[in-house]
Amino acid sequence: MPDSTSLKLRDARRDEVTLIVRMLADDHLGGGRETVSEPLPQGYYDAFDWIASDPNNRLLVAERDGVVIGTLQLTFLRGLSKVGAWIMLIEAVRVAGELRGRGIGRQMIAAAVDIARAHGCRSVELGTHQSRVDAQRFYEQLGFVKSHFGMKLAL
Amino acid sequence: MPDSTSLKLRDARRDEVTLIVRMLADDHLGGGRETVSEPLPQGYYDAFDWIASDPNNRLLVAERDGVVIGTLQLTFLRGLSKVGAWIMLIEAVRVAGELRGRGIGRQMIAAAVDIARAHGCRSVELGTHQSRVDAQRFYEQLGFVKSHFGMKLAL
Repeated sequence: MPDSTSLKLRDARRDEVTLIVRMLADDHLGGGRETVSEPLPQGYYDAFDWIASDPNNRLLVAERDGVVIGTLQLTFLRGLSKVGAWIMLIEAVRVAGELRGRGIGRQMIAAAVDIARAHGCRSVELGTHQSRVDAQRFYEQLGFVKSHFGMKLAL
Repeated sequence: MPDSTSLKLRDARRDEVTLIVRMLADDHLGGGRETVSEPLPQGYYDAFDWIASDPNNRLLVAERDGVVIGTLQLTFLRGLSKVGAWIMLIEAVRVAGELRGRGIGRQMIAAAVDIARAHGCRSVELGTHQSRVDAQRFYEQLGFVKSHFGMKLAL
């Protein structure tokens, strides 16, 4: 039996911010971008509070048997394009380091796509750094199409 | 003297929805996605009302001498990543068809980047369809880096 059958996504709690930041930092790109000090920089809590207060953003954790094993953020938005279609963005996806490669990410994305459908979204979108070749293959296997370039201007 | 010196961005009005949808539709990709009927489908107005009521989304028009000559949408969001950094997304950028190639898009994006700075954003991000080679060159000239792939799942 796969060990991720009972995985569920739920909104993160404020006392899980450190745990989530550690997951974000445990990554070849994310490692250099985060500050995992004790206490954590206030910016993390400010961001958590902002997300928690905004109905169009959700910071989620994946939980199994009471243990947090992954995280991702969802953002809902719409523009006039496609007759005002809702879009869901997925960002900051991580599976706990020691559990990668066991299908947990696949279950997390499937559960996130269910949330998008329930919200009435016409599409789910995400960006992956060009160096994340494994991530691109992973998302393609789930039906995502690598249709766009993501362009970024640092300020 | 370039003919776009007095361009300014401002929030779109509800009575400009038809004009904006016509600009979105006047495009090799957008043309097939929009429904420019009279009256317009209600979805466009629903999306306009949602954007107008959401502090993290702005539907803007570029105006010069009282005439609307372009449009774009801005979305502000933050996650825990990069110590809770704010990001600004740019979507649905169009310059009125007969005015393309005159530097108007460049001024629009520069003005949008100023808005991002004023909001305290650490980066400005956007996606361009892989077929929009001219757009990619345009954004690269403005300092954007084509660092990511944008992946999309249609629902």
